[in-house]
Amino acid sequence: MAQKPSIPKGTRDFSPEEMVRRNYIFNTIREVFRLYGFRQIETPAMETMQTLMGKYGEEGDKLLFRIQNSGEKASEAPEKGLRYDLTVPFARYVVQHREEVVFPFRRYQIQPVWRADRPQKGRYREFYQCDVDIVGSDSLMGELELIQIVEQVYRRLGIRVCLHLNNRKVLAGIARLIGAEDRLVDITVAIDKLDKIGIDKVNEELQERGLSAQAVDRLQPILHLDGSNQDKLTRLRTLLADDEIGLQGVNELQEVFDLMQTAGVTLPVELDLCLARGLNYYTGAIFEVKALDVAIGSITGGGRYDNLTGIFGLSGVSGVGISFGADRIYDVLCQLNAYPEQNAEQTRLIFACFGEAEKRYALAWAAALRNEGIAVEIYPEAVKMKKQMAYADANHIPFVAIVGENEMNAEQVMLKNMLTGEQTPVTLATLKQMLS
Amino acid sequence: MAQKPSIPKGTRDFSPEEMVRRNYIFNTIREVFRLYGFRQIETPAMETMQTLMGKYGEEGDKLLFRIQNSGEKASEAPEKGLRYDLTVPFARYVVQHREEVVFPFRRYQIQPVWRADRPQKGRYREFYQCDVDIVGSDSLMGELELIQIVEQVYRRLGIRVCLHLNNRKVLAGIARLIGAEDRLVDITVAIDKLDKIGIDKVNEELQERGLSAQAVDRLQPILHLDGSNQDKLTRLRTLLADDEIGLQGVNELQEVFDLMQTAGVTLPVELDLCLARGLNYYTGAIFEVKALDVAIGSITGGGRYDNLTGIFGLSGVSGVGISFGADRIYDVLCQLNAYPEQNAEQTRLIFACFGEAEKRYALAWAAALRNEGIAVEIYPEAVKMKKQMAYADANHIPFVAIVGENEMNAEQVMLKNMLTGEQTPVTLATLKQMLS
Repeated sequence: MAQKPSIPKGTRDFSPEEMVRRNYIFNTIREVFRLYGFRQIETPAMETMQTLMGKYGEEGDKLLFRIQNSGEKASEAPEKGLRYDLTVPFARYVVQHREEVVFPFRRYQIQPVWRADRPQKGRYREFYQCDVDIVGSDSLMGELELIQIVEQVYRRLGIRVCLHLNNRKVLAGIARLIGAEDRLVDITVAIDKLDKIGIDKVNEELQERGLSAQAVDRLQPILHLDGSNQDKLTRLRTLLADDEIGLQGVNELQEVFDLMQTAGVTLPVELDLCLARGLNYYTGAIFEVKALDVAIGSITGGGRYDNLTGIFGLSGVSGVGISFGADRIYDVLCQLNAYPEQNAEQTRLIFACFGEAEKRYALAWAAALRNEGIAVEIYPEAVKMKKQMAYADANHIPFVAIVGENEMNAEQVMLKNMLTGEQTPVTLATLKQMLS
Repeated sequence: MAQKPSIPKGTRDFSPEEMVRRNYIFNTIREVFRLYGFRQIETPAMETMQTLMGKYGEEGDKLLFRIQNSGEKASEAPEKGLRYDLTVPFARYVVQHREEVVFPFRRYQIQPVWRADRPQKGRYREFYQCDVDIVGSDSLMGELELIQIVEQVYRRLGIRVCLHLNNRKVLAGIARLIGAEDRLVDITVAIDKLDKIGIDKVNEELQERGLSAQAVDRLQPILHLDGSNQDKLTRLRTLLADDEIGLQGVNELQEVFDLMQTAGVTLPVELDLCLARGLNYYTGAIFEVKALDVAIGSITGGGRYDNLTGIFGLSGVSGVGISFGADRIYDVLCQLNAYPEQNAEQTRLIFACFGEAEKRYALAWAAALRNEGIAVEIYPEAVKMKKQMAYADANHIPFVAIVGENEMNAEQVMLKNMLTGEQTPVTLATLKQMLS
């Protein structure tokens, strides 16, 4: 036998069992997006290198997969690459189709992305992103809706989560307040570790990163901010009273919390000043969602960006968006053992096969059941019963219909419940009712 | 402004309007696959070059897109390429996972494929295939089920089609019969043109391709075969009486027609001896589906292959499969203007926005409607009414809910029908009923 074939490292095949679970996640997310009036787009797997290069930092450029036509010489620089995320293609889409797009543009996109990362546990070179964005409006209704979507998606999936919320303007105000306006990233990298390394180590790192002792001192009340979200906002409002931008951030947070209350959001949301993802592009709200019962890091994240399309020459388009990580959600549901037991996607019944007359009888019944929307199969060959039962078992088919002469004469089938082993003769009408 | 961004030639963006139509096609196909108990798999966009090379002929090898990590030197031969179809990845999947796969394996797969073809009208470098196959069984129930699937899919889509059916064994028998066993491909290439160029030109071409005058003579009764499918089968049975393989092909065709009758298939199916696609790999049945009301060529095709997985070292696995061409089906539905008018995917209602109190009122109503599974939006900003109406129009939202002080006091909204322009005050209960 030839060498067993394989797939490129960091990529995956998905078996039927995995696809049922993945579709459950994608369908749940898609259905919630739909309920909030988002519209789907798709973009090509390939983008020009001009579109991709320089958008993800130097490190990102190195992680792009480049594409060559077979006809091209290896020495020619490839002009195409695989998309690295859904955000840059979306920005490119909005600019390229700006004559047709009606703002505010509420779009979602669920497609794979590719990164030449070193493969490791839970990190793949091909994985799906589920992005939802509103662009062309700076209304904080956008932030509210994304929070509502997070609440709905995880409620439907049965995953308890907490949404962490921050605002880049508040972080900028704090940096200015302690006299370290140019140290925003250093500050956030250090305080992001508060939970892990404790306050003393954080203060050490802040000094190592070039903050003055005085600046570190002035940061202390903010690091010790606790209490309810409202307590924190009140305290921040006092601390940032003289900083216009900082205050604006506080006001935005306040409005989002007010809107959440009006809309009856019950999702746990925590104002988290240590949350500092995406500071290179987020300009307002920053979101991150963590599962409460599984230690896996962020499973959804996003924020507001005031200049998404500026990179392609169209400025003044503000947007806010989030991205659901389907692969991590998959792992969370596995660990929680929270997939639904029955799935409408799967075959409900298979007709065992004994011979020609029985096959003909099964064909008529199968057609009648499929007409009711019930997924059924007919075993194609009259092999040993044991083999047919093993097939039903392996494919998680809950019922086997056995047809013999007696059953045909009585216009029935013998229905075997594969879980209990019970056998009952049933008519077509009964079967329709049972399986609908 | 920077240069307007673009996408690689031969690729496409899909707008929300296009996605609604594409999803309609994919969902219809998927739902029928599901009813017949097929299970979905997905494979990576990238396969190793070892998997891809030599599988599509010399021409095919040239149409492969090769992938390089950005880190790799241009001089290194790329070890990965984008998948060219879904058949080779499926064969690779079956061999790689042969310990887990339970035969007969009924799988479907709906994913994009990439070919570095010269782009032209209706031919793209990225396009979707919808493949459905049964492997590990040589029962002709497989052929029947694929025909039933074709019937169901096109009935649901409202496209009138004819399925052309042939059998490679019959073609081989005919070639032997006329003493030109080694000329099977030459014969089929020539007679495939019968409709276009007429009998005289076909006979000329047959001689040019090296058939003796005697062989061409002996082919004449077969080229003139007409009448019903049953007439043709009877005539072929006589003609091929001494050819074991040819007769086997006739018997297979007969059994498929018998099974169709038993199963009540009403799809027009024509025994077409000129159909000769895929002779490099098909070993039994050959299928091709053509739309009756649109001249566009084949929109679905397939056949039986006795040795799909042999290329990867696993022999003896017979299979039968077909592939639906989503892009051509898209074009057919456009030409027939046969898309459904209303689509459940789309937003049903938008709340116009006048101010804060009205927004709060709308938030409560929107939550109640979404709870019923009804997709609604709230316009995020209190801009001019005209702009909000234009938004609803452009996004094909059929109803706008207008909220003012009177409506809030009466616990109603003013419902505007965007098609008729009619305005009616309605309660939440009425609205739920109308939009469910």
